[in-house]
Amino acid sequence: MPHADRLAALPTPSLVIDEAKMMRNIAGLRDRPELAGVTLRPHLKTAKSVEVAHRLLAGGPGAATVSTLREAETFFAAGITDILYAVGIAPQKLDQVLALRAAGCDLTVLLDSSAQAQAVVAASLRSGRPIPALIEIDSDGHRGGLSPDDPALIEIGGILHAGGATLGGVMTHAGGSYGVVGAEAHAAFAAQECAAVVAAAERLRAAGLPCPVVSVGSTPTAHAVRDLDGVTEVRAGVHVFFDLVMAGIGVCRTEDIALSVLTTVIGHQKAKGWILVDAGWMAMSRDRGTATQAVDQGYGLVCDADGTVIPDLILVSANQEHGVIAVRPGSDGTLPDLPVGTRLRILPNHACATAAQYEAYAVVPAQADAALLHWPRFGGW
Amino acid sequence: MPHADRLAALPTPSLVIDEAKMMRNIAGLRDRPELAGVTLRPHLKTAKSVEVAHRLLAGGPGAATVSTLREAETFFAAGITDILYAVGIAPQKLDQVLALRAAGCDLTVLLDSSAQAQAVVAASLRSGRPIPALIEIDSDGHRGGLSPDDPALIEIGGILHAGGATLGGVMTHAGGSYGVVGAEAHAAFAAQECAAVVAAAERLRAAGLPCPVVSVGSTPTAHAVRDLDGVTEVRAGVHVFFDLVMAGIGVCRTEDIALSVLTTVIGHQKAKGWILVDAGWMAMSRDRGTATQAVDQGYGLVCDADGTVIPDLILVSANQEHGVIAVRPGSDGTLPDLPVGTRLRILPNHACATAAQYEAYAVVPAQADAALLHWPRFGGW
Repeated sequence: MPHADRLAALPTPSLVIDEAKMMRNIAGLRDRPELAGVTLRPHLKTAKSVEVAHRLLAGGPGAATVSTLREAETFFAAGITDILYAVGIAPQKLDQVLALRAAGCDLTVLLDSSAQAQAVVAASLRSGRPIPALIEIDSDGHRGGLSPDDPALIEIGGILHAGGATLGGVMTHAGGSYGVVGAEAHAAFAAQECAAVVAAAERLRAAGLPCPVVSVGSTPTAHAVRDLDGVTEVRAGVHVFFDLVMAGIGVCRTEDIALSVLTTVIGHQKAKGWILVDAGWMAMSRDRGTATQAVDQGYGLVCDADGTVIPDLILVSANQEHGVIAVRPGSDGTLPDLPVGTRLRILPNHACATAAQYEAYAVVPAQADAALLHWPRFGGW
Repeated sequence: MPHADRLAALPTPSLVIDEAKMMRNIAGLRDRPELAGVTLRPHLKTAKSVEVAHRLLAGGPGAATVSTLREAETFFAAGITDILYAVGIAPQKLDQVLALRAAGCDLTVLLDSSAQAQAVVAASLRSGRPIPALIEIDSDGHRGGLSPDDPALIEIGGILHAGGATLGGVMTHAGGSYGVVGAEAHAAFAAQECAAVVAAAERLRAAGLPCPVVSVGSTPTAHAVRDLDGVTEVRAGVHVFFDLVMAGIGVCRTEDIALSVLTTVIGHQKAKGWILVDAGWMAMSRDRGTATQAVDQGYGLVCDADGTVIPDLILVSANQEHGVIAVRPGSDGTLPDLPVGTRLRILPNHACATAAQYEAYAVVPAQADAALLHWPRFGGW
């Protein structure tokens, strides 16, 4: 049965997963021969769904990455036990970390300062349970982390190791890879990620400190990395769905994007060439990640209800519950005749941000003609 | 007790309402003498909270405006019965409208095409209950609606009136008023709103059609309008909280903003002048509404935990769960010393978008030293 018919009973806007595409995206990274010798630790923040997490982890207990302690709690309750909380730890959150660890969750925290290391040591001592921590390394100057040659690296490692916590190792995330196009450029960022953490690991070991985990990753670099010598694990997240930002930098094709927003035409401004739909920024998010790319996709690329792209038709602007569809400025596309009530699907700029606007996914199952599935998702912290 | 102490037990990020400021904002619009003769129909989409709605409506059954049928259902269940659903109706949603009306909700829909009017008539006939509909008028070219002199106005009015629905009247929203600065400019947009709907109402009446409701409104125009001759109701929404976009166009002061995000310092990049916090775009939304204003506030303006603005300190960039605080580019502000663990509050660009990222509000009650309140909010459609 065509997607349009399978989706006909859904209200709009609804958030739709094409399960077949999602499973291909999961396999595409998992089966890269370059990753054969390392742990793949998918980031679960994109989907925030137990059903998606189980598919990313093939039903196993991990390894997984999360961005909030709410994610750690929810996925742990679903049987996922090996979790890295990959945001610098606030001291106030350590009681929650201790509670999760006491319940049996193998939760690792992240830090890049002596103050945080001292707080982790204090919490470890107070609970009698050493908390494992990775030290964040800055490989591209875009966020937190220590330079691999920062003297604080050895100091922080020493605080953790000598103080009663567990020095788990080092990690980095080359978020800058989102800003460059093509496999060659992503491979260069991947090499930079690896070089930074391997150098940091060698410094720690040379100082007599342990460094079992050497962790790298972002979706672009994980798909492009060629040489993982010295690295023990790779992380990636948005590849589970992909999105227009990833397509714009050549990590996927638009037809690989597994997430879309089902919407309905609610009006027209014919003189302006506008079609109004019931998907505004509440349905798409305010993310304009393609605005700085070679092809600006507005708030999303428009498809018919079966999921086939309508060339050069984009969501050019968005109010809270109104979206305006028009032909891409500068293109020679023509505005199709889409009467009030027509169903469309819109591919998102940024899957993490769009998915965050919803409480659940409507899933077109991979098996032909199986009934639609309803997978809850969660937000919060 | 200072706010910082009252908020000390909250996790971060948390969404905080200053109830005293909110009540002043509500009163500030409600008590404008210019609005004395008309119905004020607040928009409930900003807060999506039953507690806030009851305060906006002084505990009464309306009038209220909503942007989704989920809002209509939730507020109706809380005793609010007079509701305008102010997004062009999709024919597929009329069964839900009928169910609400059958349950006793006085729900009015909005439309601007013959196709929608015919669908509303068909639903009215099928249920034996006339659905009231307003015709949307375009007063500033920014979204949907008919020009007041569009021949379709009389045609659509006739379809509704003769066909068995209820022609409720006309409405407009001058969203363009968000793009101009100062009371004079907003008053000009308000005059334009009024002129457009009054002209449309006169055309309908001249054609022998009823037009009891003549509705205008946006937060800037509602605060600036001087002459409401011929208008029966005024709508506004974001004034309940206000935000940096409204402050940037002079509708409020930053100290009037009743909504903020509580966050914790999680790191530093001292060489770059960065302070990292646990409020990224998931906590603030991706809304960059001040980017096109005279003062770009980044992803938000930083305050201490008591809510006092720290001059020229803004959230300059945001990842999903990381925010980067820095001195505003081009200003002569200095970066304060804020150690890991410090609590801060961030004023949002756009209250509707930031609030949508949360499941609940933490409310500092207007009464000094009263305990914090927890008000749930809802999303979805």
